[in-house]
Formats: sequence, C-alpha cells, structure tokens
Amino acid sequence: MDYKSSGVDIEAGNEVVRRIKGLARSTFTRGVLSEIGSFGGLFDPDPGGASQVLVASADGVGTKLKVAFLADRHDTVGEDLVNHCVNDILVQGARPLFFLDYLATGRLRADVAVSIVDGIARACRSNGCALLGGETAEMPGFYADGEYDLAGFIVGAVGRDAIIDGRGIAPGDVFLGLPSAGLHTNGYSLARAIVFDKLGLSVDTRVPELGCSVADALLATHRSYLPVLRPVLDEAGTRSMVKGLAHITGGGITDNLPRILPAGVTARILRSAWTIPPLFGFLQRGGDVPDEDMLRTFNMGVGMIVACGAVDADRLVTALAAAGAPGATIIGEAVAGSREVQYVQ
Amino acid sequence: MDYKSSGVDIEAGNEVVRRIKGLARSTFTRGVLSEIGSFGGLFDPDPGGASQVLVASADGVGTKLKVAFLADRHDTVGEDLVNHCVNDILVQGARPLFFLDYLATGRLRADVAVSIVDGIARACRSNGCALLGGETAEMPGFYADGEYDLAGFIVGAVGRDAIIDGRGIAPGDVFLGLPSAGLHTNGYSLARAIVFDKLGLSVDTRVPELGCSVADALLATHRSYLPVLRPVLDEAGTRSMVKGLAHITGGGITDNLPRILPAGVTARILRSAWTIPPLFGFLQRGGDVPDEDMLRTFNMGVGMIVACGAVDADRLVTALAAAGAPGATIIGEAVAGSREVQYVQ
Repeated sequence: MDYKSSGVDIEAGNEVVRRIKGLARSTFTRGVLSEIGSFGGLFDPDPGGASQVLVASADGVGTKLKVAFLADRHDTVGEDLVNHCVNDILVQGARPLFFLDYLATGRLRADVAVSIVDGIARACRSNGCALLGGETAEMPGFYADGEYDLAGFIVGAVGRDAIIDGRGIAPGDVFLGLPSAGLHTNGYSLARAIVFDKLGLSVDTRVPELGCSVADALLATHRSYLPVLRPVLDEAGTRSMVKGLAHITGGGITDNLPRILPAGVTARILRSAWTIPPLFGFLQRGGDVPDEDMLRTFNMGVGMIVACGAVDADRLVTALAAAGAPGATIIGEAVAGSREVQYVQ
Repeated sequence: MDYKSSGVDIEAGNEVVRRIKGLARSTFTRGVLSEIGSFGGLFDPDPGGASQVLVASADGVGTKLKVAFLADRHDTVGEDLVNHCVNDILVQGARPLFFLDYLATGRLRADVAVSIVDGIARACRSNGCALLGGETAEMPGFYADGEYDLAGFIVGAVGRDAIIDGRGIAPGDVFLGLPSAGLHTNGYSLARAIVFDKLGLSVDTRVPELGCSVADALLATHRSYLPVLRPVLDEAGTRSMVKGLAHITGGGITDNLPRILPAGVTARILRSAWTIPPLFGFLQRGGDVPDEDMLRTFNMGVGMIVACGAVDADRLVTALAAAGAPGATIIGEAVAGSREVQYVQ
C-alpha cells in the first residue's frame, strides 16, 4: 500500500499548489515578504516602519478527524490543530498572537462542538495564544451525521531581524531531530486504510506492541514545539545558532526539509541516527508499505528539525534539553546538492 | 417553511456560541480588545505602542456551495468568501491586509481548485488584500464526489482611534441601508429547499420574474462594501459621522443590527423604506415563508447598514453616492429600547 492508493495524490496536489502560487502572487501587495510555500506567510503591516512583522498560517486536522469520530473523542483534535499551526509559524521564529477556528458540521451537536473548542482553548492557553474568533457553520447535507471538518488560522509576530528562513544553511551544517508524539496530523488516510481496512482493527483494539489501544495510538496529540524552542530563540546566544527550522508535516522529512534548504544544499539523513517509534513499524508491516512511501507520508518519529552549525550542535542539544526536549539528536548533515533529502543507513 | 425546517437551528447555534465565548475568554491575552461576537476580533499586537490594531475574522461560504456544485460554476464562490470577510472587518473600520483560505475536498479536481482560487485572487486584488497563504486539503471519504468546503480568514488593520463599534448610537440616529446583490452568502439552506425541493426547479430554469436563470440569481456575488465605504472612512469629515456599521449576514437585519447597538437602544426599521428585490418575494411565495423568518434569514436587499446622526444622513448619502453607492437610503431610526430590531410598515 502507498499513499496514493489510500486516496491522496500528492503529485496532483503539488501541481495545484504550483498554479495557486501564481494566482496568489498576482495579489501580492507591498507588505508581503514571503512567497507561498514557506510554512507561514510573512507580512509587514508597516513597510519600513515597525520592527515586528506578522506571520500567518492556515491548516486543518485532515482525516485524523475520522479516528476521532470512530472513537467519539472530540477534545483532542482542537489541540492538534492549534499546535500544528503554532509550529508552522514557529519555524520562522514567530510567537503566536491569536488563533481563529472554522468548524463545519451537518447538524450541530452542542456537546461535540463545545468539546472541540475546549481542546482549542486549552492549547491556545498553553501556547499563550488568544482564541480571537471563529466560525461555526451548520451545513445540512455537507457532512455525514456526527461528522465535521475543522480548520484553523494563526497569526504571530517576529522581529524583522529574527526571521528564521534557512538561507544560511551550508554544507557541513547538521540537522537535529526533535521527537514527535505519534503521527501528529499527517498520514491518516494511509494509516486508517492499514489499521481499519487491511488489518480489520477497531479503535478499541488493544495493540500489545504499542501498549495501548488503536484510538490512543492514533489520537496522540500533535506536539507543540513552542515550549522547548521559545527559550532557545529568546536567548541571543542560542538563537543565532538556529539556521533553520522545519516542521515535519504532510510529505514527511522528504518533502518538508527541502522547504528550508537554500540552492546548492541537500540534506543527508542517517536513518539509523534515531529510534523510529514502534507505531511506524507496526503500520509499515501491517500495510507492507515501501520505505520510500513511509518517509514521504509519516514523520517517522521526528516532528521538528533544527539546522545548525556542527560546532553549535552540542550547545543547542543541551539548551533544548534544559527547555524540556531531552530527545534532540543529530539525524543528518547538509551536503552540496539540489535541495533534496538523501537517506543513508 | 422556515429556516429550522430546512435543517439549520439558529437557536442551538446561539447556545453553542454562548458556551464557546466562555472558552475563548479563558484564552484572552493582553492584546485582545474585543469579545467574540463582534464581526471581527480586535487585537493589539503592541499594547500601548503602535497606533494600529489588527482586526481578524473567519468565515465560510456555507451551502451556497451546493448551488455552485449543481451549476458546476466554481469561479465566484471565492469572491463571495473574500468579500464576506472584507465586509466583516470593514464594519470595525479596518482595511484588509491579507487573506488565507482553507479548501477541503474529497478528491482534488485540479481545474476546480484553480477556478476557486482564481475567484479568491480576483477578489483579493480588487480589495487590495494579499492572498498570503492557505491550505488545500484532500480528505478522501469526507466530501462527496465533486464537492468541497471553503473557508477564509482575513486580517486587517485600523487606527486605534478610528475603530467603529456603534457605541455612540443614540435614539434619534438613523440607519442607512446599502443594497445587497442577491442573497450574498446566507440563507441558502432555506433558499435551496424552496427552489429545488419545493418548486422542483433546476439551476438552468429561467425564472421570468427574475429575468435570469436560477443559477444566476442564486450565485450572484456577495458585494464588497469596501470600494464605497473606504472613501467615506478615509475622509475625516465623513468618517466622524459614521457611528456604526453592520454587515447583514446569517440572521438577517434581525440578528445582525443588534450586534452594534449599545445598551438602551433599539432599531426601528421601516419595511416600506426600501424596495425589496424580486428574488426575496419569489422565495417567500415559493416557500410560503412567514415574514419573520424571511427577515431573520435573508438580507432582504440590504447588505450593509450605516448608523449616523439624522443631521448627517444627507451628507453621507451624497458621499456614498459619489463613491459609487447610489442606492443608500434611510431605512429606520434608533429609539429607546433593549438592543432589538422592531419592524414597522
């Protein structure tokens, strides 16, 4: 099984994104500092004026929602959404300012809606981000009974001279991987096809090798890297060491790490450098998924990558550990190349 | 027929909104200037510092999308979405800075996705708003073939001393109505139930009394009031006359106008003061809809309401006409009361 057979065509998606980029470019005003394709869009509300620029991003929870429907557990998907959005602007150095949600249902079940927003609010509080507004849409005939879609929008700010964009990454630099907490919010179409359709498990099935139920494994909350990265970015000594940050979402390390690589640089990732959590092996065996598809679909246990000079790696690992991220480890290095990811054993 | 029988329960929605407000309040940081329930949320990125504050809003297109699916016309719903969002922050005096979209489909049809974003980009350009990013999500099993959901998120800015919030509205003031261009993006669950289910029409049916097809009537684009209100708000003399602005969306004049009324003030709206466009009469007769439901579901031909002092009405109407809004007309007055709308013949 691979991702395309589970219903998602990444290539077709990339083609649409390419055409959409052109349309977006036609709208760019003086304030726009980045092109679409960065994790977050950069906007300067007062060109030449204020020292802070805005960073914004939109995202959804994807088909992880289907697992929440099956388990009838609705209080964590909001956390997934907020933390995903927080990470998407954090990689450009931004601290979150505010968040808005879009919740669409067929028929509104009040307890479910409140449970979802409860998760959103909890994550907003722990990221210091205000839930400033949102839209709750009741759309009869759009969503199956008991189902909904959930999207989020975040706006943050970063000092003009503190924007992180990866442009300084050069051959010889290293990549630190920060552990993920499960699948985060990506790869669920494939994961569900394996777990529910091929293996015939239910959300309540206990999986001995995972030490938990299917629901617990698949609904593990997307981790926010703000608590461990913010102290590192707030301290001038360590901030200057961070050359780039990549949030590993849909497309895995394969598609996300190149987004921060400058021309002439490729990432060589050492597969044996970190322990891939059991969930990924369980899915790979269950679906007989080729390595390449695993790496382009799932985060494989690495939710965030920090690029830095080789000489700075030890100090950054120590600073990250002090901030609460003890599992940071060197997973690869930058080499000359054309903005790709090469995997070596 | 009424709105509830068509599948949307406004009361249940209001109860959810009330509970969500409490959760949102628990996240409010120092920068938050408004409570949820304003049209847009106000955020001060630099409390006590910069003179500009941010205004943000999230919205969807709702079940107007179903008409677009039936007509296989996808280039106008993006305009609906952007213009709706632009109006939602305009009512607090904000000019748009940037916009992000969320487009979710079952299986991505590239031409449809590009057509949707083409509409978004066109509206962004005409409102001077950058399309800064977005998310295109392929979610197999969530949406029926050929269907999608579309949400948008806008951020704008307004000078701290130019925020419009209606607090100065007092008995004796008048309300000016600006013409809508059809249903805009609200009331479509009821409109579709009447037109397609009860009357058995198709999108291609030509309706003589409307002088156009069902598709043309129902897909008329949500009007942006930025081009006609911006010149009025940019000129100090006329800006100071604008006491409040209400965007007439879901809930009609009945639910939207009270959102800007201060305590002790009620709006008395004179039903005969403006000509209700034929589309609304056609829907009311077709569905045998009570007056009260019409007024709480549809905009009834008024897409934006401007509150001003009675002595300033003539000058504002003239200024609006000069900016391209010739149909502005006095539709009612503020009286003592408890933040309601009373309709008189």
